[in-house]
Amino acid sequence: MHAQATLPAPARALERFILDGIVPARDMQLRILEHHGGMLAMGAPLAANVNDKGCAFGGSLTSLMTIAGWALVELMLRAHGQDCDVFVADSQVRYLKPVWEDLRAEARLDPEADAGAFLDTLATRGKARIQVACRVLTGEGVAATLEARFVAIARKGDAHAAQ
Amino acid sequence: MHAQATLPAPARALERFILDGIVPARDMQLRILEHHGGMLAMGAPLAANVNDKGCAFGGSLTSLMTIAGWALVELMLRAHGQDCDVFVADSQVRYLKPVWEDLRAEARLDPEADAGAFLDTLATRGKARIQVACRVLTGEGVAATLEARFVAIARKGDAHAAQ
Repeated sequence: MHAQATLPAPARALERFILDGIVPARDMQLRILEHHGGMLAMGAPLAANVNDKGCAFGGSLTSLMTIAGWALVELMLRAHGQDCDVFVADSQVRYLKPVWEDLRAEARLDPEADAGAFLDTLATRGKARIQVACRVLTGEGVAATLEARFVAIARKGDAHAAQ
Repeated sequence: MHAQATLPAPARALERFILDGIVPARDMQLRILEHHGGMLAMGAPLAANVNDKGCAFGGSLTSLMTIAGWALVELMLRAHGQDCDVFVADSQVRYLKPVWEDLRAEARLDPEADAGAFLDTLATRGKARIQVACRVLTGEGVAATLEARFVAIARKGDAHAAQ
């Protein structure tokens, strides 16, 4: 389904963390497929995510996109030495067409998102939000999109870090 | 976790259909808890839906609310003798607070939704949309909300039924 041989070590470590810690991610058999150039791709086999119609369950598409976005933010923070809890705050999902193949979701920062401002705010206030854009891709094009806002809260460091 | 003894037979049959046909629903251990007065409640144990922080995985909250909404529409259609495929078209989700207990989601038609018009449109055009409002409830109040639009497409009946 995918070639993980070139997956960078931090992404491989995060995949391990996800599969060890998030029971539904393990059930869905999620995998991080790629992480480079500001894009994170995540996959899952159709068989573990199939609905009564034989295509992918909508909830699995949303879960895959949400966790791909979460992983993108988490890896960006780790790359900057930030130890944070990252939560999804809200999302808008559009289901465009059924998915009859193994699932692939790609996450990128929203074109309007400012990663520098996000990291600055996190450093000064211990909490910051950032917008992520995800989509499920098939051989026939985009099958679903998700726009989500994630909140990062510093685990320690200053008085602002507590929620 | 729940008292299904009084669950109406159509809801019990739909639960069976869901658990037989939707692999992730089975993994999440979804159950229909109640269905009466235009409200459908669905539950799932925290243990099967837990994340790395020990609370419910956001994707599971969304899946639970989405499938509760889907089940509400499906049961309404079955009650009116309509044989349809029902799909989620889009949704907006807000995650308000973490869930540290077994999951419970409630689905109702949106206050603005017109069930009569929905059924009329379905009868004349073979396809209709309706808006559903769902929320995850905990002992401490509402933990997440989902507003979703579902599309029903008649399986047979007239020339308009084909997508």
